Amino acid sequence: MKKANPAPTMKDVAKEAGVALGTVSKVVNGLPVGDAYRIRVEAAIEKLDYQVNSYAQGLKANKTYTVAVLIPNSYTPFFSHLIYQLNMALLKRRYRMLLCCTDYAPNTEQEYINMARQNKVDGIIGLTYDPNLVVDEDIPFVTIDRYLGPNIPCVASDNFAGGQLAAEKLADLGCRSVAFLRVGSSLTNEPNKRRAGFENGCLARHLNYTMKILEDGESFDEFEIFLRSHLHDGRLDFDGLFCVTDRLAYFIIEMLERMGLRVPEDVQVIGFDGVRNFGDCDYACSTIVQPVSEIAELCVQLLLQDDSSMKPPLVCLPVRYAYGGTTRENSRQ
Amino acid sequence: MKKANPAPTMKDVAKEAGVALGTVSKVVNGLPVGDAYRIRVEAAIEKLDYQVNSYAQGLKANKTYTVAVLIPNSYTPFFSHLIYQLNMALLKRRYRMLLCCTDYAPNTEQEYINMARQNKVDGIIGLTYDPNLVVDEDIPFVTIDRYLGPNIPCVASDNFAGGQLAAEKLADLGCRSVAFLRVGSSLTNEPNKRRAGFENGCLARHLNYTMKILEDGESFDEFEIFLRSHLHDGRLDFDGLFCVTDRLAYFIIEMLERMGLRVPEDVQVIGFDGVRNFGDCDYACSTIVQPVSEIAELCVQLLLQDDSSMKPPLVCLPVRYAYGGTTRENSRQ
Repeated sequence: MKKANPAPTMKDVAKEAGVALGTVSKVVNGLPVGDAYRIRVEAAIEKLDYQVNSYAQGLKANKTYTVAVLIPNSYTPFFSHLIYQLNMALLKRRYRMLLCCTDYAPNTEQEYINMARQNKVDGIIGLTYDPNLVVDEDIPFVTIDRYLGPNIPCVASDNFAGGQLAAEKLADLGCRSVAFLRVGSSLTNEPNKRRAGFENGCLARHLNYTMKILEDGESFDEFEIFLRSHLHDGRLDFDGLFCVTDRLAYFIIEMLERMGLRVPEDVQVIGFDGVRNFGDCDYACSTIVQPVSEIAELCVQLLLQDDSSMKPPLVCLPVRYAYGGTTRENSRQ
Repeated sequence: MKKANPAPTMKDVAKEAGVALGTVSKVVNGLPVGDAYRIRVEAAIEKLDYQVNSYAQGLKANKTYTVAVLIPNSYTPFFSHLIYQLNMALLKRRYRMLLCCTDYAPNTEQEYINMARQNKVDGIIGLTYDPNLVVDEDIPFVTIDRYLGPNIPCVASDNFAGGQLAAEKLADLGCRSVAFLRVGSSLTNEPNKRRAGFENGCLARHLNYTMKILEDGESFDEFEIFLRSHLHDGRLDFDGLFCVTDRLAYFIIEMLERMGLRVPEDVQVIGFDGVRNFGDCDYACSTIVQPVSEIAELCVQLLLQDDSSMKPPLVCLPVRYAYGGTTRENSRQ
């Protein structure tokens, strides 16, 4: 248990850099400090091969430099990107990330929050689904996509604007009669605003529109029944569809093909999320892209900032449209 | 800082369950114990709402009940599934997972290993790429896909058998002349055995075969040049292709379509990994499926087991073939 060579301390770094100890501490903890100071401190850290001992630091400062991320899983493309960007945003600040996949099990989320308290993580970033979730106000908590109360900052895409953008885009692309398809949880969450935004956009652009919203537990077959009821002599009543996620768009496009309809020639389809094939190849479909990296960065900023009076209850970040082969832009180029 | 109600301790649980303290400890730490005991302890934990205080436990037992996972990123489909399955396997044992995305940066991997030492994690599971990586023998370390030395267990798919299976499958599906396409790191790792296995399978089944292996940094365009050099009067010299990953297969299929070739009618394509669209929908292509859940489970078992003499240096787990639309099974059904 003896140390052969004592590791360099923060004091050694301060001496080497010719700055105050507090300045080193700020740099190490990712707090604002003048660039000139930062560069000197970083050079000294490099030279001395100084390693932050987070565990010891945690004991001293009652901090663990650890943040727990609660999310259903890591394989759904939107979640996998969010995890990656959160990881990058935390590591940049020398924070570590505890990943907690919840698999949508409501109790699991609550258990994690309790576990997180016991383990004294410095905060939690949660994309949660438990309708009865209780989050203590004494743990810093930032929620994604779901508003949990005025004292818990919520970060999301601007889902309303995204729905509206989808309608406007379909109108721009020549659609006259469109439908919105949704399936999802009955939970009140930010993605639910996609519908209202779409409706708003349709009204503004005088598009005929229809909504088909499945309840929890209803099968995707309902969409096929719905679409077939709008199929007359091989023609669909709709020339544009807005699907609430790219994943739903994927199933709907398969359905349309089974029905003998071509995408985008007969029906244009826009999804939501910005999923890329294999994570980094082209878009799976034409889509409203969520700003995943900005969402992650803001979550971490809000979680770690000291002044809680500055924390806004809900921040909606701008989305954008991207072409992904299921709309008719190509033909106009 | 005063406690209003003292939380139940492990002693309280032992008393409630009528078992020895050591038995509670075993259950809490996921160690083997008779089912009858486990059930009683779990019931007592439930009744008393006993929460494991891992942080305090870490201080006492010099354990953190935390495992670091080093992996390039969380958005590549194979990695995102691996992260999910590792998370599940660790949580089942009440271990927490620190996720460390390395973005293929060699220094980052080494930094994490150093950081992990300082933070006293109980072990590291790493899918690493740094050719000069140094792993101290005093940290429990399990490596995925890359053999790092006799004292560091390596878990991988049976990549050789997978390559062989791809060749056999193409032969079964009527192919006569096939090619193997690979791009990847020059690092010596387990996935490199896919080539040798494929070659072996081709020889055993008397298939004509050609290899096209890109070096680090060469563009995918080289594959198109290669394929076009084998295109005569609209017919390709090959009726089957084995791509080293599903991701490569995705690009190759796009290329073949640009060249006016139909998949699977003109050319059958098999990839490797078992990637599913949107993480859980159908296979992106016909593929050799890696047993991700089994890899994760074994990594965690090997990492946490006490008896290091029992740790095998290399374990290759069985793969299987899955149909994903780019081979001709359908026509035979």
